[in-house]
Amino acid sequence: MTIDHLGIAVKSLIQARRFYEDLGAQVAKEEVVAHEKVKVAMVPMGESRIELLEATSDDSVIAKFIAKRGEGLHHVALHVADLTAAVRNLKQSGARFVTEEIKVGAGGHRYVFVHPSSAGGVLVELVES
Amino acid sequence: MTIDHLGIAVKSLIQARRFYEDLGAQVAKEEVVAHEKVKVAMVPMGESRIELLEATSDDSVIAKFIAKRGEGLHHVALHVADLTAAVRNLKQSGARFVTEEIKVGAGGHRYVFVHPSSAGGVLVELVES
Repeated sequence: MTIDHLGIAVKSLIQARRFYEDLGAQVAKEEVVAHEKVKVAMVPMGESRIELLEATSDDSVIAKFIAKRGEGLHHVALHVADLTAAVRNLKQSGARFVTEEIKVGAGGHRYVFVHPSSAGGVLVELVES
Repeated sequence: MTIDHLGIAVKSLIQARRFYEDLGAQVAKEEVVAHEKVKVAMVPMGESRIELLEATSDDSVIAKFIAKRGEGLHHVALHVADLTAAVRNLKQSGARFVTEEIKVGAGGHRYVFVHPSSAGGVLVELVES
């Protein structure tokens, strides 16, 4: 099990990427993810990465998150070897999910979001390789 | 640059460790860190780890954090190759620190905490190998 990435909601990609550049990281060129209304800059972190997320619209999830909670960690994505087994175990333990069913994302990877109330206050995305 | 660990403030280690065990993780036996008034359970995550932190006293940093913000991510610790250079760069950029000087912790590793206001709303611990 590994940390796939941390998604951090920021007001300004320019400021946020400077922080990681000051640490010596090679921050990738930003990309727009139109359907999520965000701009993303990836910061490589060994086998993981940090995704800096800036809203491109006031009605994006990231804009709403910042309006409510301020800048900060939005979600943690964890790689699990067997997502079906993980979801079955979590359901048996009574865990709450944001996405009730396993979804299939770009590139064919399977993922699900666990509600923060069942994961120590952290929005956890589980992704399968 | 790698993610050394994520520190997650939880109300109940028993509940929190069950979540990670359901995912297939081997959670270590908990340890008490008396001077920080916390109990810690380590969850190995490849080259990183997650530290689940439960307060052992109402006046611990973790108890105060949960009282104010609820359960959730308390800090992110990042490994940097050259901590002196990183701190110099950050100071030139006007970053704010929680610990003004580099400290030396158990095992001789050097570390410093960057204030969330200078790091995208995340309390960032920088540690040198």
